[in-house]
Amino acid sequence: MKGEIITIGNELLSGLVVDTNRSYVAGRLMTAGVIPSFMTTVGDEEENIADAVTRAASRARVIVVTGGLGPTPDDITSKSIAKALEKRLILSPEAEQQIRDRYKKRGINPPADASRQALIPQGGRVIVNPIGTAPGYYLVAGDKIVFVLPGVPEEMRVMVDQGVLSILEAEGYAGIYIVRRILRIFGLTESQVNERVKEVPYDGRRVTIGFLPVFPENHLTITARSSISRHDAEEIAQETARAMRAVLGDRVFGQDDQTLEAVVGGMLITRGCTVAAAESCTGGLLSQRFTAIPGSSSYFLRGVVTYNNDSKTSLLGVDPALIAEFGAVSDAVASAMARGIRESSSADLGISITGIAGPSGGTKEKPVGTVFIGMAFDDGPTRSVRSYGYRFYGDRNRIRLISSEMALEWIRRYLIRGPSKNGEM
Amino acid sequence: MKGEIITIGNELLSGLVVDTNRSYVAGRLMTAGVIPSFMTTVGDEEENIADAVTRAASRARVIVVTGGLGPTPDDITSKSIAKALEKRLILSPEAEQQIRDRYKKRGINPPADASRQALIPQGGRVIVNPIGTAPGYYLVAGDKIVFVLPGVPEEMRVMVDQGVLSILEAEGYAGIYIVRRILRIFGLTESQVNERVKEVPYDGRRVTIGFLPVFPENHLTITARSSISRHDAEEIAQETARAMRAVLGDRVFGQDDQTLEAVVGGMLITRGCTVAAAESCTGGLLSQRFTAIPGSSSYFLRGVVTYNNDSKTSLLGVDPALIAEFGAVSDAVASAMARGIRESSSADLGISITGIAGPSGGTKEKPVGTVFIGMAFDDGPTRSVRSYGYRFYGDRNRIRLISSEMALEWIRRYLIRGPSKNGEM
Repeated sequence: MKGEIITIGNELLSGLVVDTNRSYVAGRLMTAGVIPSFMTTVGDEEENIADAVTRAASRARVIVVTGGLGPTPDDITSKSIAKALEKRLILSPEAEQQIRDRYKKRGINPPADASRQALIPQGGRVIVNPIGTAPGYYLVAGDKIVFVLPGVPEEMRVMVDQGVLSILEAEGYAGIYIVRRILRIFGLTESQVNERVKEVPYDGRRVTIGFLPVFPENHLTITARSSISRHDAEEIAQETARAMRAVLGDRVFGQDDQTLEAVVGGMLITRGCTVAAAESCTGGLLSQRFTAIPGSSSYFLRGVVTYNNDSKTSLLGVDPALIAEFGAVSDAVASAMARGIRESSSADLGISITGIAGPSGGTKEKPVGTVFIGMAFDDGPTRSVRSYGYRFYGDRNRIRLISSEMALEWIRRYLIRGPSKNGEM
Repeated sequence: MKGEIITIGNELLSGLVVDTNRSYVAGRLMTAGVIPSFMTTVGDEEENIADAVTRAASRARVIVVTGGLGPTPDDITSKSIAKALEKRLILSPEAEQQIRDRYKKRGINPPADASRQALIPQGGRVIVNPIGTAPGYYLVAGDKIVFVLPGVPEEMRVMVDQGVLSILEAEGYAGIYIVRRILRIFGLTESQVNERVKEVPYDGRRVTIGFLPVFPENHLTITARSSISRHDAEEIAQETARAMRAVLGDRVFGQDDQTLEAVVGGMLITRGCTVAAAESCTGGLLSQRFTAIPGSSSYFLRGVVTYNNDSKTSLLGVDPALIAEFGAVSDAVASAMARGIRESSSADLGISITGIAGPSGGTKEKPVGTVFIGMAFDDGPTRSVRSYGYRFYGDRNRIRLISSEMALEWIRRYLIRGPSKNGEM
């Protein structure tokens, strides 16, 4: 089943705003077996909107339009769609009621022109907007179905999830069922992933495998199709994911929208393990990622950003002689930082990062991208520490990002495999 | 001058990737007086690409196509464009040479099919790709000009900036000159901005004013047009920006792509002032924003993420009795944290954040979004501290983001205005 997506708004054409609605709608339509083949963006101009809708209707059976449903005169999406589909605009009592209710809930008197938003093309059936005032609607015209949704991302998303997908099924447009699984991998290059995955047999008529680099991770996408049921598609996807995981091993850290910090957080909770972080070049990014997860206060005790040498000594007890001898960016200092944060915080694990994120500060011996990671932990009866030096590539942002990712990955590997014999976790 | 943008790639249609190329190209075209009226996205399918190009050429004079120029067989953009414009594909010696040079530079032998990328529609003139192997090119067909660029964002951006814009001018397609200025505002709502700005006179034929909320900031966009010269457009934009700044005052913290952390960093350098941060609910976000700026090590000394009470006491010397009496999220603790980080770090300014980012942890008295900010500084001969409580709204991410923004804003205000008499900076 072919689909098209039309997003409307002058702000999208001017380059001021990145359009995230399109990719969201596309991803959700895919799950209902509707495959987008064209996506178009037009400004708030009647003729262009009508033109885009007419062309889309000539090529696809499912059309989703977002944007231009606000209460102001430059919101002309409904008028334009009525023109394209040769319908009259009528006042929808259902939409009007919904708008009134929304204002009432907020304790505001509806403005005089509030009912403008209730003018929809004849035959349109209202889709509830549980967040804002702009109602959405859909129209069936011949064998086509046209969905019209507000452009505010939060509203649009809920209306797709709670409205569009079930309407597609109910109206018989969901031809096949599509389920997508994403395996999130860190620590293997795309060609290493490919090398391992290429031997895995799968049914190419029902499954498509894709690669998606999302720095610093590599994602393997599994798209399964079934004409029988969603459950069947889910089973095919699950089975394929299992086979892929078997060859990729624990390099797969998570699935779908699980972040590495969420996975590590879950493992720390399960094991009743606490952590504290000492950062230099990442400047708080690692702590920020830990604490982005709700409930992280149960395992993340503290972080320190020791951006100068003095703070490494006073907050972490790093011996100044060590810094003088090996430099702040060194195996020895990474170890001392990890040990220092672990001991001062009484956390089970102390993790540290020290490096050169650039653009300046690099030397011939330690170029930009040189990063040492350290981890302190109890190895049975003794206190142990590991550290390891990496050479990462990219700009300041990328070096900081991959450094924080590697530190999280160290904790994950430690929790899965136990301490490494030496060096890298 | 009307423009259209066509982005090509199955990954864009599947919803896996958010298309950022479109908005970049749109913004850059605008500066050359080319106004995008349609943007289309299609997959790697010859017929659809040809169709999109044909339609675009029937509506606009400047067309920019990105994506599908790689070396693999599913990269069929050039073939499809040749079809749409009724040209033959020929091997461009210039493009071939460029590809060879690129591989040579990397010390790799070019693969057997490398010259595939040098097949371009007859009449195409090569645009140098200074980063990757895929050359871009442009074609003049009648009164239209078609640019074809690789889809890798880094490559595409450089080629637009270094190639497309100057070619547009040289080929006489830059009809008018457009300059955009963005005033970045924090601490005024959209209606407060509007209230102040609406009295400012400006020439509506040459200037367009727009609002763009970019949480937690509000941006005012000034788009100036001139048919005379770029310099003239720049002067109009600058003059309008000056008039707007006069009514908005120092609520405008920056212009164009200046972030608040970059502005604050610049001010700290100018004044030879150092800073240290103590965070609780923001979990390192504030330190991370400070240190995202290259050269921040000259003014950012250290940060601590005191996520539990114990760390507030041991790292910052916050009296446990204070926490017991007022709670960790309180005026008193924010003050003590600011004082503690300033004294332990010897920084000129100590800044602190303690609050409840949610989703849990709120109480009736201190609901989710309650955040206290504190700042310690030298007020002439005495050491002073200010703190103030806010109630922010939104999810965990938004509360963390606006809290870190407010802390940065405190420092900016202090550096501009000096210490407040009491309470909020």
